[in-house]
Amino acid sequence: MRMKLKEICERLDGDLSGDGNIEITGVSGIKEALPNQITFVANPKYLAAIATTQAGAIIIGRGVNGNGKPTICVENPYWAFVKVLEMFAWDKNHRALPGVHETAILGKNVKLGERVAIQAFAYIADNVEIGDDTVIQPFVYIGEGTKIGADGLIYPHVSIREEVTIGNRVIIHCGAVIGSDGFGFAPVSNRHHKIPQIGTVVIEDDVEIGANTTIDRATLAETLIKRGTKLDNLVQIAHNVVIGEDCCLAAQVGIAGSTTLGDRVNIAGHGGAAGHLTLGEDSVVYAKSAVTKDMPAGSHLSGFPARPHKQELRIHAATRRLPELLPEFAKLQKRVAELEAKIQEPEDED
Amino acid sequence: MRMKLKEICERLDGDLSGDGNIEITGVSGIKEALPNQITFVANPKYLAAIATTQAGAIIIGRGVNGNGKPTICVENPYWAFVKVLEMFAWDKNHRALPGVHETAILGKNVKLGERVAIQAFAYIADNVEIGDDTVIQPFVYIGEGTKIGADGLIYPHVSIREEVTIGNRVIIHCGAVIGSDGFGFAPVSNRHHKIPQIGTVVIEDDVEIGANTTIDRATLAETLIKRGTKLDNLVQIAHNVVIGEDCCLAAQVGIAGSTTLGDRVNIAGHGGAAGHLTLGEDSVVYAKSAVTKDMPAGSHLSGFPARPHKQELRIHAATRRLPELLPEFAKLQKRVAELEAKIQEPEDED
Amino acid sequence: MRMKLKEICERLDGDLSGDGNIEITGVSGIKEALPNQITFVANPKYLAAIATTQAGAIIIGRGVNGNGKPTICVENPYWAFVKVLEMFAWDKNHRALPGVHETAILGKNVKLGERVAIQAFAYIADNVEIGDDTVIQPFVYIGEGTKIGADGLIYPHVSIREEVTIGNRVIIHCGAVIGSDGFGFAPVSNRHHKIPQIGTVVIEDDVEIGANTTIDRATLAETLIKRGTKLDNLVQIAHNVVIGEDCCLAAQVGIAGSTTLGDRVNIAGHGGAAGHLTLGEDSVVYAKSAVTKDMPAGSHLSGFPARPHKQELRIHAATRRLPELLPEFAKLQKRVAELEAKIQEPEDED
Repeated sequence: MRMKLKEICERLDGDLSGDGNIEITGVSGIKEALPNQITFVANPKYLAAIATTQAGAIIIGRGVNGNGKPTICVENPYWAFVKVLEMFAWDKNHRALPGVHETAILGKNVKLGERVAIQAFAYIADNVEIGDDTVIQPFVYIGEGTKIGADGLIYPHVSIREEVTIGNRVIIHCGAVIGSDGFGFAPVSNRHHKIPQIGTVVIEDDVEIGANTTIDRATLAETLIKRGTKLDNLVQIAHNVVIGEDCCLAAQVGIAGSTTLGDRVNIAGHGGAAGHLTLGEDSVVYAKSAVTKDMPAGSHLSGFPARPHKQELRIHAATRRLPELLPEFAKLQKRVAELEAKIQEPEDED
Repeated sequence: MRMKLKEICERLDGDLSGDGNIEITGVSGIKEALPNQITFVANPKYLAAIATTQAGAIIIGRGVNGNGKPTICVENPYWAFVKVLEMFAWDKNHRALPGVHETAILGKNVKLGERVAIQAFAYIADNVEIGDDTVIQPFVYIGEGTKIGADGLIYPHVSIREEVTIGNRVIIHCGAVIGSDGFGFAPVSNRHHKIPQIGTVVIEDDVEIGANTTIDRATLAETLIKRGTKLDNLVQIAHNVVIGEDCCLAAQVGIAGSTTLGDRVNIAGHGGAAGHLTLGEDSVVYAKSAVTKDMPAGSHLSGFPARPHKQELRIHAATRRLPELLPEFAKLQKRVAELEAKIQEPEDED
Repeated sequence: MRMKLKEICERLDGDLSGDGNIEITGVSGIKEALPNQITFVANPKYLAAIATTQAGAIIIGRGVNGNGKPTICVENPYWAFVKVLEMFAWDKNHRALPGVHETAILGKNVKLGERVAIQAFAYIADNVEIGDDTVIQPFVYIGEGTKIGADGLIYPHVSIREEVTIGNRVIIHCGAVIGSDGFGFAPVSNRHHKIPQIGTVVIEDDVEIGANTTIDRATLAETLIKRGTKLDNLVQIAHNVVIGEDCCLAAQVGIAGSTTLGDRVNIAGHGGAAGHLTLGEDSVVYAKSAVTKDMPAGSHLSGFPARPHKQELRIHAATRRLPELLPEFAKLQKRVAELEAKIQEPEDED
């Protein structure tokens, strides 16, 4: 992948300064950039690095001095940088060829949109529908009756079980499992009797699902991941969970059964929520914390059981002082006892 | 899938009230049910919903008023509901066709029972044995010499390594790994030298293993999951672990090496146990808690290191009061100092 | 697998006592060993078991009395035991046949070293390079331009995405994902815009990666796992992370983006580190703990946020006393109030 600086500038709708004919072959941070790479400065604290960077070109904001180096000047350098990353992104430059690979297996009555790519060793069961331009990579399993929208990208070793519905522009990373049975058992004389999980999973548009993440199907009805939500790797979504729009769940988060997350909820790594609760929109759950009861919109929660983060911080700070408090308390008890003795004495003398 | 109400009633051995010829095409909760679905009321607090549900039929207990709607009256409506779910379960109605798919690979000396289904792209190594009616779905890997019992269901992308033994009626969900090497290294001058893991894994009858769960093989001897135990998704079972009968380990639980869990142990999400310990039967470990030493049967544990749950709750409650306690303590210290000063004064006057 | 005792002794360079012609078919612990198995005693507390073990032969240290049983006497019995395990290890005795299986798919311009084994249903994309003696097991996906060194062992269902670099003697267990997209999004009017992850992953020599572990590719540059590091199952390594040499990360550990671990860092199960921090070499992080800021070399950390382990233990001990402290504190307050009243009274009388 190589582009002339002037081409990049044009696509960014920026102002070029310096030789537009130099060839850019990659993107890098300002400290690591090589002479054939482009970099950017968005944060003022890196402005000084403009003088020393080896980058072939720099994306800068309005009014920034490029120090005589080739620059592209734009309104929002960070956003321009994201756009440049898109120009150099692997999948944008290695567009999968449409068509069904000869080793792929397609069941009966499979409906493929335009330009769909079904790659080697993909297994598509009966009655599956796949929308335009979606790419199904090697070793993907798609169960009977499942529907996938347009412009999707399903990476190798993904399992999507039967009767699942997936929207448009959904990205599912390697090894993720969608639609596995929810974890439901009825107790029968101290043993666990499996409750069949006859519901499904619905994944809305623009969702991204991380590697080896698991999303269980509902007992009845559906487990639902709403538009624009992003799940990191190794996340567990249990049966009947509803995740709102534009949420971000970091790696190894777990959401227990029948819990509902509002829109724009963020949960940090190893965090989670117990079952059958509602966490209001725009809430934040810190790392390793778990919500155990209903929480209103806009909650900032940490600890386990999760409490308002500020309160948790105060408790933490107080707890840290506890080891020194205990001997002080014992000392104070002794002083009070001494005072009591002294006060007592005069009375005895009476 | 569609059944007449009278057929369902017959299979539940219940008493029908209303038109037995209506067709039921699904199962749903009492609030969400559509006119072609059957629902149930087991909990008295939902009795009022009988009047308003749109369900085509309702499973009710003895003595419950069906409000003129089609009902099936049974002794135990919850259990009848599980039975109806089984009637409508996908895998019961889409029984895999017996036989070996033409793309599947079978090694030498593979022994298949009656009606075994080996689906597309399955890989069965030499000397594998698979019992009657077991279904091996696409992309399953079964290593050399492994034995799987009857009536098993192995979902796509499961890896079962060599020389593993799996019982009857075992369900293994997508992407689970059975028999990977235990994590064992001998320190050699600050480096880690791999200790070959030459043991195996034994999974007894009626075990269910969740999606992307991993169960390591033992260094010597075996890692053992006993009869009836259920593991949720993304669970880690390390080498030489023994899990008792009828345990339930929720998602993302981790059990470290050589630990033994008694029968009927329940561990909630993100919980776990350190290595080389014994957790007695009928114990419960709460979410995000981890047991770090031997604990007797019937323990209810939470926190880290896990303590008796009631004790942990008292500590939590006390800790929450700590931020207000600290200034009160400082105040008390001051008051005692003032008292001391007052008591001192008269003495000085002597 | 069977070996004569004298062969084992020769390969261990030990001193044989007893019949060297007996056949050994396995290795076991001293208590569980059967008459055809070899065992060892390294820990003095098991010396007494020499008299009662059923093992066919025992590896013992210098000066240890073999009680008349067949023994191999060596300088370091534990190390000799590891060597015996290697003799009996499955993969050493079931060396994969070199060659490309007829069902495997090789892209254009793939470079294979000597004696490489590409097993059934492996998918090797264009421009991949694989070094001498490396074994690629069934259902492995290797993306375009990825390089794997010599003597590697890649287990079933591993996904290695494009442009990744893997060193020599690397073992990757079933279902692991190397090179998935880092979890990076730019906020655009309350929505998440994907930041293409155009960097890569570099895995150095002698690394072992556990089952279903995920290692994300960097946004720019590389995610780096240095020589000799061992990752257990279900571990998450986020984008731009650097893990030093000879580290050990236990199961379900998570390391957030752009964090750097020094050499020989050990992290126990469910532990982790937040993003953008440095954890010095030879540090230890206890189970379920997470580091949230830079920590110097040699740190022993526990809790969340992780603090020096000794300090954390003191806080824990103090916290456990808190429930009894609270009523004592209330009592002390009352006593002080009484003292104050008494002191006051005489003044009033004046």
